[in-house]
Amino acid sequence: MKSEMKMKDQTNKLIFKRLGIHTQNEHHAYMREDCHVCVSEGFEALTRIRVFNGEKSIVANLNVIRSQILQPGEISLSESAVAALSVKEEAIISVSHLHPIKSLSHVRSKIYGNTLSSKQMDEIIRDIVRGDYSNVFLSAFITACAGKGMQTNEIISLTEAMIATGQRINWGPKIVVDKHCIGGLPGNRTTPIVVSIVSSFGLTIPKTSSRAITSPAGTADTMEVMTEVNLSMEQIIEVVDKEDGCIVWGGTAKLSPADDMLIKVEKALDIDSEGQLIASVLSKKVASGSNQIVIDIPVGETAKLRSTHAANELKSEMEKVGNAIGLKMKVVISDGSQPVGRGIGPALEARDILAVLRNAPHAPQDLKERALLLAGEILELSGKVQYGDGLKISRDLLDSGMAYEKFVAICKAQGRFSEPETAKYQYEIKAESAGTITKVDNRRLAKIAKLAGAPENKTAGIDFLVPIGTKVEKEQTLYLIHAESKGELNYALEYYNSQKEILTIQ
Amino acid sequence: MKSEMKMKDQTNKLIFKRLGIHTQNEHHAYMREDCHVCVSEGFEALTRIRVFNGEKSIVANLNVIRSQILQPGEISLSESAVAALSVKEEAIISVSHLHPIKSLSHVRSKIYGNTLSSKQMDEIIRDIVRGDYSNVFLSAFITACAGKGMQTNEIISLTEAMIATGQRINWGPKIVVDKHCIGGLPGNRTTPIVVSIVSSFGLTIPKTSSRAITSPAGTADTMEVMTEVNLSMEQIIEVVDKEDGCIVWGGTAKLSPADDMLIKVEKALDIDSEGQLIASVLSKKVASGSNQIVIDIPVGETAKLRSTHAANELKSEMEKVGNAIGLKMKVVISDGSQPVGRGIGPALEARDILAVLRNAPHAPQDLKERALLLAGEILELSGKVQYGDGLKISRDLLDSGMAYEKFVAICKAQGRFSEPETAKYQYEIKAESAGTITKVDNRRLAKIAKLAGAPENKTAGIDFLVPIGTKVEKEQTLYLIHAESKGELNYALEYYNSQKEILTIQ
Repeated sequence: MKSEMKMKDQTNKLIFKRLGIHTQNEHHAYMREDCHVCVSEGFEALTRIRVFNGEKSIVANLNVIRSQILQPGEISLSESAVAALSVKEEAIISVSHLHPIKSLSHVRSKIYGNTLSSKQMDEIIRDIVRGDYSNVFLSAFITACAGKGMQTNEIISLTEAMIATGQRINWGPKIVVDKHCIGGLPGNRTTPIVVSIVSSFGLTIPKTSSRAITSPAGTADTMEVMTEVNLSMEQIIEVVDKEDGCIVWGGTAKLSPADDMLIKVEKALDIDSEGQLIASVLSKKVASGSNQIVIDIPVGETAKLRSTHAANELKSEMEKVGNAIGLKMKVVISDGSQPVGRGIGPALEARDILAVLRNAPHAPQDLKERALLLAGEILELSGKVQYGDGLKISRDLLDSGMAYEKFVAICKAQGRFSEPETAKYQYEIKAESAGTITKVDNRRLAKIAKLAGAPENKTAGIDFLVPIGTKVEKEQTLYLIHAESKGELNYALEYYNSQKEILTIQ
Repeated sequence: MKSEMKMKDQTNKLIFKRLGIHTQNEHHAYMREDCHVCVSEGFEALTRIRVFNGEKSIVANLNVIRSQILQPGEISLSESAVAALSVKEEAIISVSHLHPIKSLSHVRSKIYGNTLSSKQMDEIIRDIVRGDYSNVFLSAFITACAGKGMQTNEIISLTEAMIATGQRINWGPKIVVDKHCIGGLPGNRTTPIVVSIVSSFGLTIPKTSSRAITSPAGTADTMEVMTEVNLSMEQIIEVVDKEDGCIVWGGTAKLSPADDMLIKVEKALDIDSEGQLIASVLSKKVASGSNQIVIDIPVGETAKLRSTHAANELKSEMEKVGNAIGLKMKVVISDGSQPVGRGIGPALEARDILAVLRNAPHAPQDLKERALLLAGEILELSGKVQYGDGLKISRDLLDSGMAYEKFVAICKAQGRFSEPETAKYQYEIKAESAGTITKVDNRRLAKIAKLAGAPENKTAGIDFLVPIGTKVEKEQTLYLIHAESKGELNYALEYYNSQKEILTIQ
C-alpha cells in the first residue's frame, strides 16, 4: 500500500463527474482516452485501476471514453463505486496502477489442484471482501473450489475466514438456536413457521436467510412479501431482544460479506458447490451468534441432494466443520421427492405459510408437518424439553395460535406486516390424461417458476395442486403459472411447451 | 432462436445513441431505469440481454442509467457492441430477454469433474465464438479445464472445435511447415530467424504467432516493432505466395477466434493450462494450413516447464493430439535455465533478432544457435534435406545474408520495415558482490519487465547482460530496466527492491 500511496501524486488528480451508470457487481471507472493520466501512466483497455478518495480506495475496471460525456480532466465512476468511496460531484479524486493482488497466486495454486492453508484462504477472503477481485477471479475461485475441489480443512478455513471478515452478534452466554434447510425443494418454506413456534416457546432464534441462489425463491425473498428483511445489525438485535426471533436477509447485516459477494457469481454460474455451501451456511450461523443448529437435508431424485448416500456425505462433512467451529448440531435427512406446500415463488409461498400459521382448513399439511418436526428437533436439541416431547409441544404452540401471534409480532417489529398479493397473469396447466401422479420433476418446475419471473417478481411462480398420489381426471388443472407480465408468462410457457412431461401420470 | 425473434416486437424498440464507451472484452448495453422496455420486461441489474440490429444480434451486460446522458426511448452500447452490430447513430434497435445458454450446462458438468464429449465441447466453443459467454463463464470454463482437468480426447475435441469455428487456409497439396516454442523463456525469440532461414530455403512457412499471454512479449508483440502483424487472411496469403513465409499475429486473421477470446481471460487470470495450450497451438497450426510442425519445449527451474518429466508428459500429450488431427510432428526438449539473447521485451528482442540476422559481432550466440537448431530440424522433417544436414544448411543460409534479405522482404511484404527504438528511461541494476553467475530466476526477471510496461509499451523491458557462467565484479551492471515512463520505472524498481536476489552470484 505504501507505494500505491506514493503514486497518488498531483498528476493523477481528476474531477469527478457523476453519469449515473449502475453497473453490475463490479466497480467501473470511466476516463477519457486523451486524459493526461491515461497517457502518462500508460493505461489501456483491459486494465483495472485503484481509485482514491481521501483515505478510501477501491479497485475498478477501466472504461475508456471517446466522446463528450466527459470533459478533459474529468473522471466518472459507476454508482457502486460512488457509494463505496462516498464521493461527491466535482470532488477531486486520484487514480493509480493496481498492484498485483497477492492472494491471486493462492487461487492459481487451487486451480492447479493444491490444498490451501488456513492463512492462504484467509488472505483470499480478505481481498474479496475489500473488492479487489474482479468477476473473472471470483468465478475462477468458485470453480476451483466446486465439485470435489475442497478438503475438509479448507472448508473449515473458508468458514472461519468468512466469519472473521464479517460482523458477529454476541448474545451473551445463553442458548441461541437456528435451523437451515439445504434448498433444492420448491416451496419448502418451513423457516417462518419454525421461527414462530420456537420463539413463541421462548428460545432465542435470530434467523438470517439468503435470497435465492439458483431457486425461484429464498426465504428472504418470501419474507420480503410480508415484511422488511433488509435490517441492519442494530435492528436485528432490537427485534430479537423484543420478540426472541427474527427472519431477515443476512446480506444487509454484513454477517458474511464474502459470501454475499461469492453468491452473486455463483448465481450467474448457476452452481452451488458443497464447500461453498457449508461455509456459507455455517459462517452465517456463527456470525448471527447461534450455538445450536438443526440442519434439514431433503433427498430426492430432483432435489439438490439426489441420493441418501450424497446426503450422508454432506451431513458428515457439515458435522465435521460445525464441530471444528464449536457448534452443537443435529442434521436431519428428509423426503425431497416433491415440492412442499402448493406455492413456488415468493408471494405464493407466503400465502401457504400464513395458511399454516392461521390453521386454515386448506393449509398444506405437508408444509405444516415438516415445520413441526424441525421445531421439535430444535426444542429437543436445546435440552429445554424432554427427548420425545418436542413435536407435541410444537404442535400445541401452532394449534393454539401462539405461533401466528408471534409471527405477526416479529413482522411488525421488522417494520410492517403485509398480506401477499396475486399475480396479474395466470395460466392453467391441465392433465393430458387421467391417472395418478407418480413423479414430479422439481428442477423443471422450479425453472418454469424462474422463467415466469420469480424471485425478482414477487407474485410470479407456480401454484402446484397435485402432490404425488393425487388421482387426476383428463383436463384437470395440475398447476397454475403466475406471472406479472405477458412476456414472462409466454417465456415460461415456451419452455413448458419444449419439455416432455414434468409430472408423471400413470 | 425462433422465440427470441418472436419477442422482438414493437414494444422493445429503442433509438441508439452513441456514448463512445469502450469497455473491456464484454459487450455492454446502457438503458434508462424508466425505459418502457426495462419496466415491461422486468429487466434488473445483473442481467444479460440480447440486442438486435436487423438480423444481427449479440449478448450484452445490462447497465442501468439514472441520469440525463440518455433520454427516454434511447439505448446506448459499448463500442465493441456497436462494431459487432454495425449500428449507426439513431438507428432503431431492439432488445429481448436472453434465453438460457444451453452449453453452460456442459461447463457446469466439467466443473463437477465430468468428461465432455466432442459434441459438448463443440457446442461450448460455438457459443463462445458467438459472444454468448460472459467473462464469468469464460473464467469458469478455463478454470475447470486447467490443471489436470482435461482428458486427451477432450483436448482433441477442443482443438477440433477451435479449428471448426475459425477460418482455415488451404495451400494445396504441398508441404507446409511451422514451428512453435512453448514459452516461458524470456527473450527466446527464435521464430523470426527460423522463418527467415526456412523460407529462404524455399519451404512454405505461414507463421502466425500470439501476443504475450503471461510473458513480457509474444512473437507478435516483438514483430510489431519491425513490421505490421495485424494481417487479414487475404493479406497473409499474398505475403506467403510472394515470400514463402510470414510472421504475423494469429488473431486478426480469425484463425482460431475462440482461442483469441479465451486468451484474454487467461491473461487476466495469469494461467495457461496444458489442455488450452495444446489446443491453442495446434488449432492455429492446422488453421494456417501447416502439416509438419517442430515444437520446442524449453525446460528449466523457472521456465514454463520445470522438469524433464513434465516436459515429456506435455510432449507425449501434444504428439497424441497432433497425430489425431493429422499433423507430422517433432517435439524437441531444450535447455531453459536462463533467458535467451539479451533483450526481454518487444523492442529489445527485436534488436537481438536483427543482430543475429545481420551477423553482427555482438549478436547473442545462444539465440543464433537455438534458431539454427530448430531451422535444421524443420528442414530435416520436411525430407527436403538429408538427415544430419539440416543444421549446416541453415547456418549457410544465415551466414550468407540470405536469411536477412528474406526477413526484410517479408517485413516489407507485410507493410513496412522499421528499426526498433530505445526506451526513454533506463536504470542499471548492479552486482552487490563479485563472483560467477550461477542461477537466473526467469520468472521474476519477466515480472520486472512486465511491471516496467512490456509488452504494451514496446521499448520497455530488460537488457540482460550476464548469462550463467559470467564472472562479474562488484558494481558491474547485471541488467538494465527500460521503461517509457518514470511511473513504470519506479513501479518495476519497487518490485525489484522488495525481492531477494534474482541472479545468484557465487
